Amino acid sequence: MISRDHPRYHSLMQREKITDAWRKGILADSGMIAHGRGEAFDYLLGEETTEPARKAIKAAAAALILAENPVISVNGNTAALVPAEVVELAGEIGGKIEINLFHRTEKRVKLIEEVLREHGASEVLGTGKLMHIDGIMSPRATASPDGIYSADTVLVPLEDGDRTEILRKSGKTVITVDLNPLSRTSRMASISITDNIVRAVPALIDTVRELRDAPREELEGILRKFDNTENLRETIKLLDIRRYNPEIESSQE
Amino acid sequence: MISRDHPRYHSLMQREKITDAWRKGILADSGMIAHGRGEAFDYLLGEETTEPARKAIKAAAAALILAENPVISVNGNTAALVPAEVVELAGEIGGKIEINLFHRTEKRVKLIEEVLREHGASEVLGTGKLMHIDGIMSPRATASPDGIYSADTVLVPLEDGDRTEILRKSGKTVITVDLNPLSRTSRMASISITDNIVRAVPALIDTVRELRDAPREELEGILRKFDNTENLRETIKLLDIRRYNPEIESSQE
Repeated sequence: MISRDHPRYHSLMQREKITDAWRKGILADSGMIAHGRGEAFDYLLGEETTEPARKAIKAAAAALILAENPVISVNGNTAALVPAEVVELAGEIGGKIEINLFHRTEKRVKLIEEVLREHGASEVLGTGKLMHIDGIMSPRATASPDGIYSADTVLVPLEDGDRTEILRKSGKTVITVDLNPLSRTSRMASISITDNIVRAVPALIDTVRELRDAPREELEGILRKFDNTENLRETIKLLDIRRYNPEIESSQE
Repeated sequence: MISRDHPRYHSLMQREKITDAWRKGILADSGMIAHGRGEAFDYLLGEETTEPARKAIKAAAAALILAENPVISVNGNTAALVPAEVVELAGEIGGKIEINLFHRTEKRVKLIEEVLREHGASEVLGTGKLMHIDGIMSPRATASPDGIYSADTVLVPLEDGDRTEILRKSGKTVITVDLNPLSRTSRMASISITDNIVRAVPALIDTVRELRDAPREELEGILRKFDNTENLRETIKLLDIRRYNPEIESSQE
């Protein structure tokens, strides 16, 4: 039991969720290592939602509200960390949830579906037959026919670069959550939220609620003014090894 | 099987070793996540031994040669990545090998001992009763009586900050290998090698061989001229998010 007063409470809770998910078979081999990489980048961001990230979240919220067929993609790490929040966000935007795994196995898809249902999901796509986007015969181009295949806007947190590129090239608005602003994923997306998913998804829920009743022109204006390349540049300037808080080590085990 | 021609061969091999070690029970829960963090920092270093790291390796080699009772500490991640190299280095410096685990269990100690013996170790300390350095009643202050407890110089790769501090305060020369130059470990050590252990240990072996027959005054001179704080500063200047090679993503899954 990690005490809420522990100085590293949030980080340790995330590790515990990731480790539990691993044990249950929800995470692929690379899932824990990927989480560690995220931890390092989060240290450099100062473990907080930055100003550029807030702007990206606002643009993402506008895009999700404006979308006709928004879909949220879920993989192992996402299901491990924010299953309830993903279900809540899908409800707020009237969007679908689809499981997409880089290392897809029937077992993992089932386990992740269970996790999502336990947290309130009524419908989970991606569990059956998949189609190939733009006819690209690659595991990275698969999508559920009623889900991502026919979506106009997709939220794909913790996604790989190839898949992000395929979705973007097929004409969809692609929103990613990735702690590394220089990754291919971040560079390929329409809107890249450089933040920890455990902060970003709740922030998206709040922002969607704030903007839900805004006039269409206002939402379109928010989207028009958002420049992803510029936003990533601002983020990179903020990323500083000197932001690394030495206190992290003293109590992080 | 990962092909030697794969652009991400080294990184993928390290992940495979870490994952195998995890499955075998050699790695603690946090071991894979820690490896991921190291990956991120290595990306920022450009995945190569930097000039400051070369200087630190030279100073470390001198210290290990001059030592009267040098000991190399081995934990799960070290045993997973460089077991043969550790055995070889111990042979070169006439030093001992001691297992030290943050999350110590008899089972893990046994497994790691087996790995080291499989790779040529004849004697492995830390498998029996441990003493407490300076009477500090903490799991981080434990040491084998013939090993670290009575060592004058210790090589403790991938070590935690508290333990590094305890060893340093007890008067030992502490050499660490840590990819994060701002970690407490790096700041507490006498000589901090900011490099990937898979590059650092082979480089230490080579450098020990080069310096082995140097006169004592030369070795002492190398040590005297080495300034760890300055060396860490130089490393931090080199750490640059812009060194992050975008090609990493395209083929790293």
